[in-house]
Amino acid sequence: MDATVKVLEAVASRFDLNLAMTSALMGGAAIDATGEPLPAATLDQCRASDAVLLACIGGYKWDDLPRATRPETGLLALRKQLGLFANLRPAKSFAQLEGASSLKDEVVNGVDLMVVRELTGGVYFGTPKGIDTDPSTGARVGYSNMVYHDYEVQRIARVAMDIAMKRGKAVVSVDKANVLEVSQLWREEVIKVAADYPEVDLSHMYVDNAAMQLVRWPKQFDVLVTGNLFGDVLSDCASMLVGSLGMLPSASLGDGSGPGVFEPVHGSAPDIAGQDKANPVACVLSAAMMLRYALAETDAADAVEAAVEAVLNAGWRTGDIMSDGKTLVGCKRMGELLVEAV
Amino acid sequence: MDATVKVLEAVASRFDLNLAMTSALMGGAAIDATGEPLPAATLDQCRASDAVLLACIGGYKWDDLPRATRPETGLLALRKQLGLFANLRPAKSFAQLEGASSLKDEVVNGVDLMVVRELTGGVYFGTPKGIDTDPSTGARVGYSNMVYHDYEVQRIARVAMDIAMKRGKAVVSVDKANVLEVSQLWREEVIKVAADYPEVDLSHMYVDNAAMQLVRWPKQFDVLVTGNLFGDVLSDCASMLVGSLGMLPSASLGDGSGPGVFEPVHGSAPDIAGQDKANPVACVLSAAMMLRYALAETDAADAVEAAVEAVLNAGWRTGDIMSDGKTLVGCKRMGELLVEAV
Ligand SMILES: CC(C)[C@H](C(=O)O)[C@@H](O)C(=O)O
Ligand SMILES: CC(C)[C@H](C(=O)O)[C@@H](O)C(=O)O
Repeated sequence: MDATVKVLEAVASRFDLNLAMTSALMGGAAIDATGEPLPAATLDQCRASDAVLLACIGGYKWDDLPRATRPETGLLALRKQLGLFANLRPAKSFAQLEGASSLKDEVVNGVDLMVVRELTGGVYFGTPKGIDTDPSTGARVGYSNMVYHDYEVQRIARVAMDIAMKRGKAVVSVDKANVLEVSQLWREEVIKVAADYPEVDLSHMYVDNAAMQLVRWPKQFDVLVTGNLFGDVLSDCASMLVGSLGMLPSASLGDGSGPGVFEPVHGSAPDIAGQDKANPVACVLSAAMMLRYALAETDAADAVEAAVEAVLNAGWRTGDIMSDGKTLVGCKRMGELLVEAV
Repeated sequence: MDATVKVLEAVASRFDLNLAMTSALMGGAAIDATGEPLPAATLDQCRASDAVLLACIGGYKWDDLPRATRPETGLLALRKQLGLFANLRPAKSFAQLEGASSLKDEVVNGVDLMVVRELTGGVYFGTPKGIDTDPSTGARVGYSNMVYHDYEVQRIARVAMDIAMKRGKAVVSVDKANVLEVSQLWREEVIKVAADYPEVDLSHMYVDNAAMQLVRWPKQFDVLVTGNLFGDVLSDCASMLVGSLGMLPSASLGDGSGPGVFEPVHGSAPDIAGQDKANPVACVLSAAMMLRYALAETDAADAVEAAVEAVLNAGWRTGDIMSDGKTLVGCKRMGELLVEAV
């Protein structure tokens, strides 16, 4: 985040943007300071802003806390409270990173897909949920209901269709309609919405097959639209096409009445925390998405993305994307290089 | 299945096994003949057998039937009725198929992992489930409850631990315990069972990360144990490590009081049905698992697996695993070659 703020300052100065940035605590840092993963003051501050740029929120230290005070609970609450039902996770291969993926070059070269993940519904938020213990036998049962309302499916389907219209006009909706009632509703509602987009080629794929197809031949995809849990899994799977989670930004958007949240797809990587090893690019590219989608500063967004390309072209690499003949740098230095490129 | 039955006949004659094989209708074929995807007569016949070898069950023709009479419903009923809670899906790379995977050779060479998937619980069978329509507004909601009882988790965890003891003694349990209550119960119960297996190295991974790690560096895995839905997705993902679903067998086992079901991981591939293009190896290797696990005919199982190796070594390939310099054959010819090799 430090690196990203500096990149934003640089781009603001270059394009004469009046970017007022404030910071607020969330996740582990907020738990340490206030006992809560999403303090009310933080939520208020987010609501009072045009956009929220989010760093990573967890770590070993907070892993054994009860569910209500875990960092992840704060993240889910932020998404829900801000009504961020649409999570956009682009996966675009970088020509400069040829060789970085575990997949063959011919499989990933030129991949350019967008996972549109529903973010405030499904099994993440459905009720009933809980763990019950039978008082007489001690037997336990855990349950989390996967629920979708028609309007939830419709609005995320519209987001996917609108995005597809600006891209390759092809949407694959991913579900498990051969087994799950909730997926049957999902599929029926997506089909209804698609009627308003005659130019978009809509097809359906079961989630098991989609995971496989993403690995087998990802270039078949333009836009994927899916539920919260399936999107969580498929977007992580898709990240491997690019070579590293360290390159992947995301945007979480609502109906436009409040701020969106922009964050890297990766987690806090507690195993390398504080070692100056992290790749700042995912966070920097999330800031570019923020400039583009939330602030409508297209030139500034383009400049940030061009800076990433330039730094990669010049051969600079963090450890996660390092390869023969390139120059290894830490997080801080990578950030400085990006600032210089802007 | 035709090819597999011939291989079984050959191996029975070589090892003087008294294999009594009968056949019964299920899925699409059963729907056409009786209107039901799993006729009672078929279930009775399965129950009266020592093992069930299952071919694929669906196709375009039956895709639009109501849920109760779809082919998949018959498959789920067979698993549930026979109490087949443990689905074993090995993914082992074949040296002969070097180059067949979309992943780099150094990533997949030597992969040998086992996905142990819970098969009769979770969101596939949980209640409540359904689609409700509000009579006044017409608004609809779909829901499928992901449910696990402690004993369901314990017994599948034991299966995974027992298998790990015969392999690399490492189990990764996959869940989404940072979000889902049902996963929290899952993790707690797996940890309890692991106490009885001090030699097994147990770790936990979130499902999104597991999907990514399977693609990033699959050799880190020995045994994965997970719930029904996560196992469905991860095992399809893992299949890509081997290069083709056409190579992947599976076993579905219960508590030993009734027959197990052995079936290829792949579906019926209606797009190539009847064209003599399918790879019979997954079904043949499922028969080998049947010989090994259900009939305790280890030598016969070894012979079938050796036949597959021999045919691959000799350069014979179906279309899904074809590469330069190899000889392309159809399903029928591949079956004959396997029979000859046995
Ligand atoms: C941290 C976790 C709650 C979160 C999720 O599952 O949504 C993360 O995996 C993500 O994808 O943003
Ligand atoms: C056909 C379908 C019901 C089935 C499942 O989801 O279990 C299949 O995908 C499988 O993995 O065996």
